[in-house]
Amino acid sequence: MFEKIDEHSIIKIFLEVLGQPKPGYSRIGDDVAYLPAGGGEVVVKCDMLVGETDVPQGMTCREAARKAFVSVVSDFAAKGVKPEAALVSLGIPPILKLEDVRNLALGVKDAKEEFGFQFIGGDTNEAKDLVIDCIMVGRAERIVERSGAKIGDVLLVTGDFGYTGAGLYILKRYGRVGSGFAERAISAVVRPKPPLELGLALAEKKLMSSSIDSSDGLALSLYTLAESSSAKIVIYNMPAAPELTDFCEEHGLNPEELVFYSGEEYEIVFTTPKENLDEVQRLAKSFGRYVRAIGEVTEGRSVVEFITSCKRKILERRGWIHLNRSDRTKIRPESATEAD
Amino acid sequence: MFEKIDEHSIIKIFLEVLGQPKPGYSRIGDDVAYLPAGGGEVVVKCDMLVGETDVPQGMTCREAARKAFVSVVSDFAAKGVKPEAALVSLGIPPILKLEDVRNLALGVKDAKEEFGFQFIGGDTNEAKDLVIDCIMVGRAERIVERSGAKIGDVLLVTGDFGYTGAGLYILKRYGRVGSGFAERAISAVVRPKPPLELGLALAEKKLMSSSIDSSDGLALSLYTLAESSSAKIVIYNMPAAPELTDFCEEHGLNPEELVFYSGEEYEIVFTTPKENLDEVQRLAKSFGRYVRAIGEVTEGRSVVEFITSCKRKILERRGWIHLNRSDRTKIRPESATEAD
Repeated sequence: MFEKIDEHSIIKIFLEVLGQPKPGYSRIGDDVAYLPAGGGEVVVKCDMLVGETDVPQGMTCREAARKAFVSVVSDFAAKGVKPEAALVSLGIPPILKLEDVRNLALGVKDAKEEFGFQFIGGDTNEAKDLVIDCIMVGRAERIVERSGAKIGDVLLVTGDFGYTGAGLYILKRYGRVGSGFAERAISAVVRPKPPLELGLALAEKKLMSSSIDSSDGLALSLYTLAESSSAKIVIYNMPAAPELTDFCEEHGLNPEELVFYSGEEYEIVFTTPKENLDEVQRLAKSFGRYVRAIGEVTEGRSVVEFITSCKRKILERRGWIHLNRSDRTKIRPESATEAD
Repeated sequence: MFEKIDEHSIIKIFLEVLGQPKPGYSRIGDDVAYLPAGGGEVVVKCDMLVGETDVPQGMTCREAARKAFVSVVSDFAAKGVKPEAALVSLGIPPILKLEDVRNLALGVKDAKEEFGFQFIGGDTNEAKDLVIDCIMVGRAERIVERSGAKIGDVLLVTGDFGYTGAGLYILKRYGRVGSGFAERAISAVVRPKPPLELGLALAEKKLMSSSIDSSDGLALSLYTLAESSSAKIVIYNMPAAPELTDFCEEHGLNPEELVFYSGEEYEIVFTTPKENLDEVQRLAKSFGRYVRAIGEVTEGRSVVEFITSCKRKILERRGWIHLNRSDRTKIRPESATEAD
């Protein structure tokens, strides 16, 4: 069957799958999109997903589209901003079929229903790569800053780390297989779940003195908080995913590498005064999440120290930087790391 | 010299070239961008420019980046929305040098200074194509609709048509050469000037009953207005660029084809009650622009008729549709058009 993919057929599919936004918002297909008038600062975030570099083998179009939205929702979660409306700019490579376009639309729908925003439009183009640029708009009375960490604050994370690095490793070598740990690790890559509700609740109750999401890797998130708040962060509890050590031992990998440098976990890394700890834990529990205290903010120059049972060392300041992606996929075996 | 292009070097260059936005706006480099609180609907538009398909040979990186913003500014002009803040998502192909990135930033700066918005951030990625996705945010008390044209209204355009088709034709065959008409035609392609101030003033004075920009071609803009307003539009005056007939004669092209189907003119196509005509003309003159009455809105089904000295015919409903670009570059010689 001859499939004609043009701007109109793509808009038609998106309309069929997603429908029009609720009253007060512009209609899909309008010349410009708009949100109803409202108070607070207008918050905007764009994040581009590129097929070649951001979509690992084994990930579906639907998952890729949903994940593109996860990356903007994750920032909103960490900053305490409720997603309100989203647009998407698409670059469609010639290889894509109408069925793939429908799956992209379904991925946007998954995100829309999960994170509760209105989908209000976008743009379509032909491109060599699959390009999904998500634009999220929200409004906020107060945005949680990176720079509010105080000496004595506890450093917390909203989940386990290491899954995404392990997931990419498994996907690359064995494809989309496995159960137990492998399944959870792959799921962390193809279907990450940013703690949006928890982030919004923590922000609303002013329980985060500083925060950032962990999309560029835990180490870099910690450094960003330390540098923005001009303080030292000491990590005494590595938030390793359960069974990560077994997995690493089996595959000759270094758990520390996977926990601190995998990236794309979309968890919140934040600080709070010690006296808030119980309330934070209760709140997390009420959303079916848990937070883990992994360190504290201390006086000193802006570095991140990592204390293990036997030693105290400065954590390497690196992460996953776009256009320099070798950092990310290079999951080094334990032996190599020792030589660094 | 070894050039390292990564996220940080790109952000650094953009910061050097563009600087931080004025107080009240988020800083470039923040996790999310925001605009100060304010009244009115929040208007958002995204438009993706892809190097392979949207940047003709002979156009510089700086012009491409500026033009990417022109395409969103043009919609804002037609809708009467003042551009307030912009973001840009970049896909950077490996072939690009740091100097090219600087030129992209300079193009954004050109647009920023010309159209008066704050540049508040974006995202960078590696991609096979050069991808520039512009996101513009503004606020408006009232958005000029496509659907407000009334029977008896005059149909106007803010400029001459045919330049862009001729410019692409010249660029493709002869490169960036010529003076007089050729220079103006090429300039229309590489440095289009959307009538932003005029559009805002027309909207503020409620002098547009309906409007749309002409980025997808004049014919399609006219059809969109006719269909949205459930009326017939009759064109009695083809807004051909001066000397277009000479150019077409010389090259065996059909002026009608170039005027109605070139696209990317970024002019405003709008309707207004007849009694506003003088005021509209005076206003245009005050901005160094002129508007041309080219037709009227009449009763009938949603079509566009074109009356020339000898005949009355239905204008073909087609334009330049993304992912179906043959329509655009196929500038047909006069003889071929007659056969249609």
